[in-house]
Amino acid sequence: MVAGRFLLIFVAARLLAELMVRLQLPAILGELLAGVLIGVSGLHLVVSGESGVALAPWLGHLFSELASISPEQVQQLSAETYPFLQAVASIGLYALLFLTGLESELDELIAVGAQASGVALVGVLLPFALGTFGLIGLFHVELIPAVFAGASMTATSIGITANVFGELGLLRSREGQIVLGAAVLDDILGIVILAVVVALASGDGFQWAPILQLLAAAAVFVVAAIGLSRTVTPSFDRLVDLLKAPGEIVVASFVVLCLCCFAATAIGLEAALGAFAAGLILSKSRHTEAIQETVKPLVSLFATIFFVLIGTSMDLSVLNPFDPVNRSGLVVAAFLLTVAIAGKVVTGWSFLSEQPTNRLVVGLGMMPRGEVGLIFLGLGTAAQLLTPSLEAGILLMVIGTTFLAPVLLRLSYSWAAAGLPSIDSALQPASTTDVD
Amino acid sequence: MVAGRFLLIFVAARLLAELMVRLQLPAILGELLAGVLIGVSGLHLVVSGESGVALAPWLGHLFSELASISPEQVQQLSAETYPFLQAVASIGLYALLFLTGLESELDELIAVGAQASGVALVGVLLPFALGTFGLIGLFHVELIPAVFAGASMTATSIGITANVFGELGLLRSREGQIVLGAAVLDDILGIVILAVVVALASGDGFQWAPILQLLAAAAVFVVAAIGLSRTVTPSFDRLVDLLKAPGEIVVASFVVLCLCCFAATAIGLEAALGAFAAGLILSKSRHTEAIQETVKPLVSLFATIFFVLIGTSMDLSVLNPFDPVNRSGLVVAAFLLTVAIAGKVVTGWSFLSEQPTNRLVVGLGMMPRGEVGLIFLGLGTAAQLLTPSLEAGILLMVIGTTFLAPVLLRLSYSWAAAGLPSIDSALQPASTTDVD
Repeated sequence: MVAGRFLLIFVAARLLAELMVRLQLPAILGELLAGVLIGVSGLHLVVSGESGVALAPWLGHLFSELASISPEQVQQLSAETYPFLQAVASIGLYALLFLTGLESELDELIAVGAQASGVALVGVLLPFALGTFGLIGLFHVELIPAVFAGASMTATSIGITANVFGELGLLRSREGQIVLGAAVLDDILGIVILAVVVALASGDGFQWAPILQLLAAAAVFVVAAIGLSRTVTPSFDRLVDLLKAPGEIVVASFVVLCLCCFAATAIGLEAALGAFAAGLILSKSRHTEAIQETVKPLVSLFATIFFVLIGTSMDLSVLNPFDPVNRSGLVVAAFLLTVAIAGKVVTGWSFLSEQPTNRLVVGLGMMPRGEVGLIFLGLGTAAQLLTPSLEAGILLMVIGTTFLAPVLLRLSYSWAAAGLPSIDSALQPASTTDVD
Repeated sequence: MVAGRFLLIFVAARLLAELMVRLQLPAILGELLAGVLIGVSGLHLVVSGESGVALAPWLGHLFSELASISPEQVQQLSAETYPFLQAVASIGLYALLFLTGLESELDELIAVGAQASGVALVGVLLPFALGTFGLIGLFHVELIPAVFAGASMTATSIGITANVFGELGLLRSREGQIVLGAAVLDDILGIVILAVVVALASGDGFQWAPILQLLAAAAVFVVAAIGLSRTVTPSFDRLVDLLKAPGEIVVASFVVLCLCCFAATAIGLEAALGAFAAGLILSKSRHTEAIQETVKPLVSLFATIFFVLIGTSMDLSVLNPFDPVNRSGLVVAAFLLTVAIAGKVVTGWSFLSEQPTNRLVVGLGMMPRGEVGLIFLGLGTAAQLLTPSLEAGILLMVIGTTFLAPVLLRLSYSWAAAGLPSIDSALQPASTTDVD
């Protein structure tokens, strides 16, 4: 039963991811769409017990034939094994955040520090403020869900941006460096906000004192992680060298991961922040590359399940435009998408630069939300903070920005290559080889 | 909470594994002992909800302080999160069996086929028959638990034997080749028996027809896997080459793994057999080494949890010799250990050989049960097939053989090196470099 579900998830995710890659779109889009396809909005092949949606009859029959149990038992088993999928997905989530931290190039961030900070700050504050206050003011959404939706628009996906820039040969260009630096920084800011918002949501409503306390704690946590990356990693490296039983690298880094998650939870923050901080700490280790190699299979397997499960749990029927009840939900989704796009594109004009810089490319590069937006969505859904129409709106926002960013970047680049003056003058294609 | 438990498990397992490695003993012994130390027989730091054993008070207080919840909630949370640990451990189990299959050198097996088959057959049948009928006849154990305990003594641990042989430079010697070939073969036989025994245990008692049916199904399954390893892997390789989204190797092999587990369950066998068969199938792939590299981190992390959890769930108080009630349990444990040792050591004399062969080294090499014995124990405990004293007896048998095998092998080798005539004449140290 569990093996059958894994099969369904992996085959669907892989088929659509391969399709997306061939369309020059991010693989993560395929994994999300695979989830939507096989989940409550689609074929009902993978559904949680809580959703109240029954497994597709043909699949129920197949399982009941194969396992010689009644269709009712299949439904029950399906509901009972869903938490197992969620547990595996959460391993994927933490592994992904750990890898994101590991891959953060803190030194490169410092080289473009001033510009990147401007881009990151504006790119976090603008979508957050516009989104939150817009949802409250225009659509009368409650405070906590509004803050959550606003926060989900803050963090750029480093992975997707780096991929597209690499492909276009722009990774080592000035624009590429600024965008990647800013993406690292707004990952940090976004995950700090996430840690605070989730902690708030489980409290008794909105009060300034705990917010400031949590913000301070989260900031101290991240700063400590960056400090530790310089001071503690030599000891970590020496410890790993001392270990003789097999699997020393993966186990030692997993212990650091658990320690950071435990520490984050102990001071009232999200474990997700701990996972990211653990990656930051170990990003300066001599073994960083070996750690990345051992973590990547975990991410490939389990983060896929995380993304697919987000897709399966989304009820897209709330966006059906033919049902008049849904009109307001559609308007909210369109609003979120607009804020998410505009709030990042304008970041291209948020810094001073003496060198010629293509500001549109910077803005577009900051646009894709990808995995961090989805992590917000997944945690918000799990904590039941969001209404179905907000969930669907955030999903559309993530899909929209993740889809549009590579398409628009390629378009603006081919305009530049075709010699259109406004962009050509500013683009500086890579002189070194691509870093993928 | 979950992060805290992972921490406990990994730190304890690593500390004791490092100690064992320094004592030139297998790391797996340390992981088991770590489990015993932190589990129901030790400090009560990791306990299942079902065991009825409360978490150690100081740890309960620590968690309740850190998470600001009552000690009762900590107990409840501890019980609720235990299935999560078990789920992760089961991933480790399947990954380990998959890796065991992947590392099976079927070609080397064929080179020493005749001798290895003799060793494997005797080494499976003798401990199984002596164990099962001894438990029934001498100790009046019921049929199913007796069969299960007998079966748990069948399979030699390839990993431990290969490690010790490699260290002594005997891996490429005739003895080494025979033992490794036989170990591959008795893994296959052992896992076939496991698949049959577990299926039987969930049925309505002992009947010949279903046993023969299951045996036939399991045999066909393994033969099919070996056949597929030659016919299907080229297509698998071509498919992997076609995939462009990242993580193609790990996802593709995981899909094969799920397919085989699903197929095994669908024909009424244990999923464990499917995982092993998947490894056998892919052992002939062009990507075998890459697959091994991606699976090893999974095994290092999650199989450790599997081994530690086995240790935590063992109630060793049933072996306390000062309690007269336990005398019979101790006798059973001693009986199992004796059968397990004798039943494998005599395999050294179970084949014809024209070349000089050190038969004692072959017999000792077949002795360590390690992971496959523990897989039996873990599945038997989970299915509640065993009494506490049988569980403890099997654990002692596994620990005893795993501990004694490397010690005795090294002793017999150093005798040989010291020129004691009985062994010296037959030993042929490796001429090529060690394969680790």
